[in-house]
Amino acid sequence: MQNKIPVAVLAATGSVGQRFVQLLEGHPWFEVVAVTGSDRSVGQAYGKACHWILPEPMPDRVTGLTVLPTAPDAVNVPLVFSALPADVAKEAEPAFAQAGMAVCSNASSYRRQADVPLLLPEVNPDHVHLVTAQRRRTGWKGCILTDPNCTSAGMTVALRALQAAFGLRKVFAVSLQALSGAGYPGVASLDIIDNAIPYVGGEEDKVEWEPRKMLGTFKTDQVEQADFIISAHTNRVAVSDGHLVCLSIELGNKATPEQAAQALREYKAPPASASLPFTPKPVIVVREEPDRPQPRLDRNTGAGMTTVLGRIRPDPLFDLKMVVLSHNTVRGAAGGSIYNAELLVDQGLLE
Amino acid sequence: MQNKIPVAVLAATGSVGQRFVQLLEGHPWFEVVAVTGSDRSVGQAYGKACHWILPEPMPDRVTGLTVLPTAPDAVNVPLVFSALPADVAKEAEPAFAQAGMAVCSNASSYRRQADVPLLLPEVNPDHVHLVTAQRRRTGWKGCILTDPNCTSAGMTVALRALQAAFGLRKVFAVSLQALSGAGYPGVASLDIIDNAIPYVGGEEDKVEWEPRKMLGTFKTDQVEQADFIISAHTNRVAVSDGHLVCLSIELGNKATPEQAAQALREYKAPPASASLPFTPKPVIVVREEPDRPQPRLDRNTGAGMTTVLGRIRPDPLFDLKMVVLSHNTVRGAAGGSIYNAELLVDQGLLE
Amino acid sequence: MQNKIPVAVLAATGSVGQRFVQLLEGHPWFEVVAVTGSDRSVGQAYGKACHWILPEPMPDRVTGLTVLPTAPDAVNVPLVFSALPADVAKEAEPAFAQAGMAVCSNASSYRRQADVPLLLPEVNPDHVHLVTAQRRRTGWKGCILTDPNCTSAGMTVALRALQAAFGLRKVFAVSLQALSGAGYPGVASLDIIDNAIPYVGGEEDKVEWEPRKMLGTFKTDQVEQADFIISAHTNRVAVSDGHLVCLSIELGNKATPEQAAQALREYKAPPASASLPFTPKPVIVVREEPDRPQPRLDRNTGAGMTTVLGRIRPDPLFDLKMVVLSHNTVRGAAGGSIYNAELLVDQGLLE
Amino acid sequence: MQNKIPVAVLAATGSVGQRFVQLLEGHPWFEVVAVTGSDRSVGQAYGKACHWILPEPMPDRVTGLTVLPTAPDAVNVPLVFSALPADVAKEAEPAFAQAGMAVCSNASSYRRQADVPLLLPEVNPDHVHLVTAQRRRTGWKGCILTDPNCTSAGMTVALRALQAAFGLRKVFAVSLQALSGAGYPGVASLDIIDNAIPYVGGEEDKVEWEPRKMLGTFKTDQVEQADFIISAHTNRVAVSDGHLVCLSIELGNKATPEQAAQALREYKAPPASASLPFTPKPVIVVREEPDRPQPRLDRNTGAGMTTVLGRIRPDPLFDLKMVVLSHNTVRGAAGGSIYNAELLVDQGLLE
Repeated sequence: MQNKIPVAVLAATGSVGQRFVQLLEGHPWFEVVAVTGSDRSVGQAYGKACHWILPEPMPDRVTGLTVLPTAPDAVNVPLVFSALPADVAKEAEPAFAQAGMAVCSNASSYRRQADVPLLLPEVNPDHVHLVTAQRRRTGWKGCILTDPNCTSAGMTVALRALQAAFGLRKVFAVSLQALSGAGYPGVASLDIIDNAIPYVGGEEDKVEWEPRKMLGTFKTDQVEQADFIISAHTNRVAVSDGHLVCLSIELGNKATPEQAAQALREYKAPPASASLPFTPKPVIVVREEPDRPQPRLDRNTGAGMTTVLGRIRPDPLFDLKMVVLSHNTVRGAAGGSIYNAELLVDQGLLE
Repeated sequence: MQNKIPVAVLAATGSVGQRFVQLLEGHPWFEVVAVTGSDRSVGQAYGKACHWILPEPMPDRVTGLTVLPTAPDAVNVPLVFSALPADVAKEAEPAFAQAGMAVCSNASSYRRQADVPLLLPEVNPDHVHLVTAQRRRTGWKGCILTDPNCTSAGMTVALRALQAAFGLRKVFAVSLQALSGAGYPGVASLDIIDNAIPYVGGEEDKVEWEPRKMLGTFKTDQVEQADFIISAHTNRVAVSDGHLVCLSIELGNKATPEQAAQALREYKAPPASASLPFTPKPVIVVREEPDRPQPRLDRNTGAGMTTVLGRIRPDPLFDLKMVVLSHNTVRGAAGGSIYNAELLVDQGLLE
Repeated sequence: MQNKIPVAVLAATGSVGQRFVQLLEGHPWFEVVAVTGSDRSVGQAYGKACHWILPEPMPDRVTGLTVLPTAPDAVNVPLVFSALPADVAKEAEPAFAQAGMAVCSNASSYRRQADVPLLLPEVNPDHVHLVTAQRRRTGWKGCILTDPNCTSAGMTVALRALQAAFGLRKVFAVSLQALSGAGYPGVASLDIIDNAIPYVGGEEDKVEWEPRKMLGTFKTDQVEQADFIISAHTNRVAVSDGHLVCLSIELGNKATPEQAAQALREYKAPPASASLPFTPKPVIVVREEPDRPQPRLDRNTGAGMTTVLGRIRPDPLFDLKMVVLSHNTVRGAAGGSIYNAELLVDQGLLE
Repeated sequence: MQNKIPVAVLAATGSVGQRFVQLLEGHPWFEVVAVTGSDRSVGQAYGKACHWILPEPMPDRVTGLTVLPTAPDAVNVPLVFSALPADVAKEAEPAFAQAGMAVCSNASSYRRQADVPLLLPEVNPDHVHLVTAQRRRTGWKGCILTDPNCTSAGMTVALRALQAAFGLRKVFAVSLQALSGAGYPGVASLDIIDNAIPYVGGEEDKVEWEPRKMLGTFKTDQVEQADFIISAHTNRVAVSDGHLVCLSIELGNKATPEQAAQALREYKAPPASASLPFTPKPVIVVREEPDRPQPRLDRNTGAGMTTVLGRIRPDPLFDLKMVVLSHNTVRGAAGGSIYNAELLVDQGLLE
């Protein structure tokens, strides 16, 4: 225990914050020693302040932690996980980085900043080295690194495997997204019972942009965006966890569904990320049933870090149709940020 | 009452059959005088045999009807509505047509037959005249006319308005379909609670084919298929009634979202179908809120016959994105077949 | 129209407020001429300020009304319907009554006040005359009259019929309550998906007390509480509208299930309330199927004003078990208050 | 592995059968070597024949097992777990017992047979010795032992603790039951979306009777039924797993909620069952939040074997109200039968 890196979770009482706390319990490298919250919670014990909504029980060890304000001087640790909302993150995260902390963020605020890594370690671990340029530009001892929007995450893992094998030209992506993606309390029950909502605020923009940065080419102080185009429709459905995405894909070079399935199955995380504790095991599962993946049945594959594909079939307009599932608060949020932090540490970039 | 046309509902105890019975109550032209069912139900009173699942109460007038076998000689009426499953319809519907009855079918069995009309009266009322060729070929006094698959229905209404104004080249269609589309008992509750299923058996094929027949050109004894291409993904979600379809569309001639919205709003049913009792009022509603249409809020627009659109916006790959909603058991099934029957009668084609 | 009584809806943008607006559309006696809302909404058009959540469309006539502050001088009408939360109602409703308005309230704030009627017109229309004592005590020209908690409403209608026929001694009541009972946004979707919550704040107390006032005896300036005892458990389930209550009842005089069913079926509203526009038609429906009433199928019986019973059977501890269903935002809230207002007007008590 | 007892699961492809297979994976004493199914499945590999509906993946080891007919000569093992429907179990289970096998049954067929143990090992482990009388009567080398109905299970654990501390007189029990209790496909999705069903066929009878046998006194060849009385209402709600039961209890000797909570918390399994592999750890959890237990959050407490209580409070008619939650397919079905089997083996009663 004495050798673990002490970490803090910013905005620890919210739904993603809770997931950070839950996933970090028993982590081999990190130990949660501080949690922050809004004014309403500050000063209370985490066990009291937090309306815990996960089926997994709250770890005993954190129940007694006092909720701290989200301020660098209140939290003195080398590494923080940020579940802050985008508007708060915009101000707060640079302050933490300047104070010397590595900020592994789940917020969208800095994903488009040229020298901020937007990371899926099983996809683009080399992008983590943008932090060197970032530190040079800002003079920070700390840094900010980000994970993608929860819908972008799983589909980008799938697209990476296809890009590597066949190249990519065009992608149609239509999501069926889970409720936990909207935080807590998030979607009102009256809005989703016997209903589906063909709108997730701000999401389509992110889904059309983020995968192209992650699948782009690392160039010292920025990433050259990949040049394929994505069109996205995003929808909310009555599912607790697990985002489904229907994809139609035009490849650079033709491939049959069988060839695509093989490329997806054989995809491995690059050596830099393949042995980290949160590496998905395996990175991708391709199911053969006609009606999978399904959120309730498949979201916990590989402890929620695995990307699950299925229904790979020809597309009459492009080349292939397929369906991707990814656990939105694990692989698509807290678990992804923890994986990012592992990569940062393993690459010797935590100062 | 003595002037109404007596009609029968085939497979009246199922979910679409019940919808026929409910929608025909009080119809100005038709009166249900016979209902048929499977061996298990035959001989019982409809009120006993039928496990009624609609929120609208069972019409008093039908509760005492004795369930008859699905055979032409048991049912002696000029017009029957068929809610038969496709495999049964395959055999039964021609027998009814041969016995002189007009069969307004909801089954998929004969939709692809060249001289069987596949009808949405607000879209292609001229296609009803295929029955003349059909009668010539078969020698039947009766005939078969069909309505499209419940997912094809609403999107084809929208596509017609766009086709008429701008032409159509390519369409991506991803559905979020309601449970009632699978009949009763249909989808098991354990399969859909906290879940979505990215698969509806046989549906994608229908959605990629049927709109092209309906939007094709009538040529005496067949329809020349429209030449645009559709790629479809079909999904099941936890909604009772109302199919949502996300569309990305490449038009023949460019149009802005505003121009498309205007064309959709101004679309009118052709004169042949515009004054029939079940004509949607209006044919299309275009909503302006960012998050509509939604099944629970919009499915009953125009008594369930109106096609509701929204979220018309640019598409980075094609021209436009939009969302379509249609009530799958009203406009997309029983209501559509009744509308077809009205057209047949009004055109003097009921013999 | 010029003869209709102009009315206002207080807190018209919330879920019960919307139901008032929807149910008052086309009312033969009342016309909504003013709507009030919170500071956030004041000054906006109702159609803009209100996030409408009902499947029935917003009436055209109200979309252009400007939202007013909830203050007596802003709203100058003889009659107001209050959908205010209890804490706001506590202050506001007496101010409106003092300013000369009759306040038909849906809030719990004054239900236990001795001279405030707690009304179900089909049950205890004579209690409306408490307003005379109320006016004497307060000097108000206006008055306050209340409807019961949404869970109490339906079960009290059933209990009245049994009380009248057999007397009542003990009642166990366990509710399965709909989401709309918690207002909007109310219950978070993550709290109720694949879940049930055995707790509704403050509800058990109300359910154990309110029916005893309504079933008590009117005595000029107060009601002598009925002397039977109720034990209540209240639960929230994933239903949009319609509260189910399981009842076990010990009667004053024994009755078989058949005798109870007959008494329930034969129950009629007293003459004072039987011909009012919102009188339930019929007051009670007793269903015979083993598995009814059910919220989705039965909540709209009698336009949502009818109390639906079923499963009347012997109880091994008390006398009878049965199940009651009532539409919680119609009979149990807005519809009930409108019915109360009709009674007040019809009795000549609107000054 | 060579020392494990080979076991078979009867009706292994159904929902409870799947749960048996899943829970037995890695069991320290038992190993599934055979699975049986209906004619439709016989001869196929289990992995093909079974439409697996659990979120936990199908154990690799069973996917290749050939589905056998449900007949004693097809299955030659000392111990079988029966997930047979009651009508099939009625015939089949005695045949297996006669053939020398111990049948740990989840069916209701023999629960009321005087010399068949109805067991919750943490409650009445001594009742297992009824098998001696059973063998004497029948001449079987094998035997039948049963677990209770899934709703009876959790509430009986709670009632045992209260009975032991204070005695029991009267119990009102109203359930909110999960969908998995109805098997697969079980409840149709259209019957439960936006709905609750106040009826579970045959359930109330079981809930009123079974706890009294389990809480009765063992007398060599029968059990003297406990003499308290239960009145039950049973309801189905939109929850996948986890039965909630609202209880109102009249005790033999008065107790405050605090005293009851303490008695429940301190309740321990008797020595005969306390150290078995499937013993709940702990037997009972009493939660202090006002709104717990909840199915989604609490059903997996103690790997689904723990009984979770909450909301212990005074009852105006009896003494105490409380809420009990139990995982219906684990503690209330497959897990319970496995626990029963462990007790049988540990007591040296497996011949």
